[in-house]
Amino acid sequence: MTTPLRVALLGCGTVGAAVARLLAQRAELLAQRAGRPLLLTGIAVRDLSQPRDLPAEQAGLLTEGGDALIDDADVVVELMGGIEPARSLLLRAMGQGADVISANKQLIARHGEELHAAATAHGVGLDYEAAVVAAVPVLRVVRESLAGDEITSISGIVNGSTNYVLDLVARTGSTFAEALAKADALGYLESDPSEDLDGIDAAAKIVILARTAWGGSVSFDDVRCTGISGLTDADFEQARGTGQVIKLIASAWTSGPARHPRVELAVRPVLLAHDHPFAQIREGGNAVVIEATSAGRVRLHGAGAGGEATASAVLGDLVAVARRRSVGS
Amino acid sequence: MTTPLRVALLGCGTVGAAVARLLAQRAELLAQRAGRPLLLTGIAVRDLSQPRDLPAEQAGLLTEGGDALIDDADVVVELMGGIEPARSLLLRAMGQGADVISANKQLIARHGEELHAAATAHGVGLDYEAAVVAAVPVLRVVRESLAGDEITSISGIVNGSTNYVLDLVARTGSTFAEALAKADALGYLESDPSEDLDGIDAAAKIVILARTAWGGSVSFDDVRCTGISGLTDADFEQARGTGQVIKLIASAWTSGPARHPRVELAVRPVLLAHDHPFAQIREGGNAVVIEATSAGRVRLHGAGAGGEATASAVLGDLVAVARRRSVGS
Repeated sequence: MTTPLRVALLGCGTVGAAVARLLAQRAELLAQRAGRPLLLTGIAVRDLSQPRDLPAEQAGLLTEGGDALIDDADVVVELMGGIEPARSLLLRAMGQGADVISANKQLIARHGEELHAAATAHGVGLDYEAAVVAAVPVLRVVRESLAGDEITSISGIVNGSTNYVLDLVARTGSTFAEALAKADALGYLESDPSEDLDGIDAAAKIVILARTAWGGSVSFDDVRCTGISGLTDADFEQARGTGQVIKLIASAWTSGPARHPRVELAVRPVLLAHDHPFAQIREGGNAVVIEATSAGRVRLHGAGAGGEATASAVLGDLVAVARRRSVGS
Repeated sequence: MTTPLRVALLGCGTVGAAVARLLAQRAELLAQRAGRPLLLTGIAVRDLSQPRDLPAEQAGLLTEGGDALIDDADVVVELMGGIEPARSLLLRAMGQGADVISANKQLIARHGEELHAAATAHGVGLDYEAAVVAAVPVLRVVRESLAGDEITSISGIVNGSTNYVLDLVARTGSTFAEALAKADALGYLESDPSEDLDGIDAAAKIVILARTAWGGSVSFDDVRCTGISGLTDADFEQARGTGQVIKLIASAWTSGPARHPRVELAVRPVLLAHDHPFAQIREGGNAVVIEATSAGRVRLHGAGAGGEATASAVLGDLVAVARRRSVGS
């Protein structure tokens, strides 16, 4: 019980630095919750010369070579983003018997089936609560809380950047162009803004949610995806004039028989009445509604992005891995 | 993996009958999620002559003697309510090495520490998601999703019956007495209505939530509890006149140092502005807000009562037990 769990971090951006810092700050609390200490053994980065937002005592943990770090870890936490080398490093980690945790929604959406197959083959865990709306614990609710139920649909506001833009236009009367410029200036948009504006980020999240809810082969190609970049000021004027607001809604629902349902997926801007629960989600907030046959409608709201909020979800997965390993050993 | 998990049910009221029926209806889905079949071996009831809402093929599972059933089970699910004999039966089950699941909030609130000590001593699981706001998965979120975070407060509308009454007065202008009579006629109030109206039900739930969030000794005696029975029509008129609504809010929060926090608990009617998220909870709905240092504010809404919704939470716990037992074996 007192052997530390050896944790390797891949990536030290906003989320990685927050995870590292919280592992140090909350060492005692985490050890108590996990049943044993969580020992950060190293942080792999692409470029050691970049400045990092780490406490001084953790600077020595940075390294450019990820392989040795991975081979020595019980758990590998991937917070690099991008497809490669993240995918190869996670496959290597699982091949070495390490459990893996990721916050990388594009990787999980595009290569989730391959990664899950590897996890099964090697008998290790693969968790990624932080990949979908950060601190809103929707994956665990779908996978565990509703494990005895039949989920019929999942929908939500799962991209905070576009919600910030849409909320700004709806509430301040800014033009769409002004709101986009402001969101960009505040760092709300990705370096490639089409990830957010064209719905690609939201599509990745709804693919992961659908796969978690119903299993089977669900991919990007199944998403009927329309972002917000085609909206015009006339659309917003019409919404305002009719007491409605425009929100970018990602949805997944089933049709056909309950045992072998066909899964439908869409991301698109939707007009909502002012008193609709989704209409009231402000700024970068996220919300998800899950409909299940017995549970009825379960709604979850919270911060869908941000280094600390995402780190909270990563740490929740880490404690779960530590607890699972204690049960299995 | 294909050995069935032997499940014994104690109690066959609204929730027990729903669990039994769903175990039959969803047998294949549950076996797939759990990794092995869930086999209902029997349903213990106090009086076999009472009519039960069970499918014909399950009627033969009913029995008056719980002991033999318990001693033969892998998992015992207690849905009887009341303190005794529920407490003794769960202690017996754990002593025999069975995992136990309960939806009994009064039992868990009053004897949770004793039951957890027994679970630890016998190396078995003790789960009770259904005991707190039914299908709103708040215990799992507190215990697992936020396991790496520091929760600073939990508050919510956790009693659907009182919310139904308060909502009726606020929205229809009924008198308080009329609303109480209507709630009673619709079966919204417990047979002893003081459980709901004096805040005892809400107090049990906030005690369980606080213990899950912060551990330690938290009991009923720590709750500053005021129900809604002392409210008058003048209170409701004042709320209406000032654009506010009255809600019964259960809260738990910490004061003092983060590592050894002092936990404060209260249940009381609170005046809320119309646009407060809690003010918008209608009829028997429930809502909980959890504040955590890193995750920020996480809000959960859903059905807080009802046979099917409560059964959904019980089945989620059952699948979790089956998965845990597969990992451990």
